Amino acid sequence: VLEGAKVITEALDADAALEDLYVAPGTQDPVVQRAARAGIAVHVLAAGVMERVTDTVTPQPVVAIASWPAVTIETLADADFVVVCVDVRDPGNLGTVLRTAEASGASGVVCCDGSADISAPKVVRSSAGSLFHIPVVSGGNPVEVMERLGTWGLCRLGTSAHEGVCYDGADLRGRVAVVLGNEAWGLPAELAEQLDLTVTIPMSGRTESLNVGMAASVLCFEVTRQRRAAGAGR
Amino acid sequence: VLEGAKVITEALDADAALEDLYVAPGTQDPVVQRAARAGIAVHVLAAGVMERVTDTVTPQPVVAIASWPAVTIETLADADFVVVCVDVRDPGNLGTVLRTAEASGASGVVCCDGSADISAPKVVRSSAGSLFHIPVVSGGNPVEVMERLGTWGLCRLGTSAHEGVCYDGADLRGRVAVVLGNEAWGLPAELAEQLDLTVTIPMSGRTESLNVGMAASVLCFEVTRQRRAAGAGR
Repeated sequence: VLEGAKVITEALDADAALEDLYVAPGTQDPVVQRAARAGIAVHVLAAGVMERVTDTVTPQPVVAIASWPAVTIETLADADFVVVCVDVRDPGNLGTVLRTAEASGASGVVCCDGSADISAPKVVRSSAGSLFHIPVVSGGNPVEVMERLGTWGLCRLGTSAHEGVCYDGADLRGRVAVVLGNEAWGLPAELAEQLDLTVTIPMSGRTESLNVGMAASVLCFEVTRQRRAAGAGR
Repeated sequence: VLEGAKVITEALDADAALEDLYVAPGTQDPVVQRAARAGIAVHVLAAGVMERVTDTVTPQPVVAIASWPAVTIETLADADFVVVCVDVRDPGNLGTVLRTAEASGASGVVCCDGSADISAPKVVRSSAGSLFHIPVVSGGNPVEVMERLGTWGLCRLGTSAHEGVCYDGADLRGRVAVVLGNEAWGLPAELAEQLDLTVTIPMSGRTESLNVGMAASVLCFEVTRQRRAAGAGR
């Protein structure tokens, strides 16, 4: 379910497969005509119905149903920069991670079993369209996902509050999978053991941790920074 | 107003000045006894009252009133790393910026007129205690704030989607003020003209911008990274 003209426009821009568009009575948004021209069935709802079916505090006048393309992890077999979410349960955080992954140039994201549902409206909203722009694999046992990525030769990189090497001292120019855990308890021990590299983001003050969206931003843009610096040095 | 045992514990840890503690009937949280021992007046509310006065979906069983210490901008006259918020209106984003500022080692934050109220419960929650740990100046005309910081010799750094130098190519080792604008429209023209340096965070994909919390994380940790690298090179 895609809520709001902004998200639906992003989906149309990305050629996502929309099936039906539902519109509150009296809605004049240009996205409605655009969808109709694209062959999507447009249904005008009775007054008051939209308010009952949408989950936001401020109901959107337009809602679309999209068929979600199933992306398999094999899509990422040759990827050189992957982001893996393990137990990232907050939809807003997951959306932020998707947005950061796209912006920093990741090839794709794997949201393992236990993370928020990527089709949840809040994930779609907070990803600001990134969900439509890069391959996002939904589901998968995290231990098996880690094994696959390792077999494919990606360096599986995780974070630790204190026990890793400084993140900007690690060489992130090779093929890398940035593995993000749950904000409260990090990665389960069995996954931490599968990591090829553990890094720490040094922190000042009394801060104990960054939230997972912030940590993802710092790590993913460091990957890109190092690659850009290496490219400039060639 | 501080809502919830977690935030109140952080405030007690930071020796913030709490005035009164309000408790829902039957609350057993250890923070209540700790506050009482610290000389804070504890009031037990009648059943149902807490649900009406708190603003979260899940009401907290404990709420405290803190007197907010007024921090003046003069506190930052000798600072070497300041974060300035101009029109950062979303309380969650502002809290994230405070958390990033503390974690990256900033000396303080200025929240100019037009930004979210730093005492709003959502700011307090999402700052995860940072509000109590570093000096936060609330209010101030943004043009005047920029003038003061410039007079004090800080390099006022802002972002532009396309027109700046690459952020990691800029020298951020000197005294710097990272100026963050509104997510939708950035910095007003009059403030953009006051900047000493405009940087761009290069982005891949179709992403048009990072949210202000992500941009703050990338920039603030780049400041710290450069300073750490410079220290290691000495």
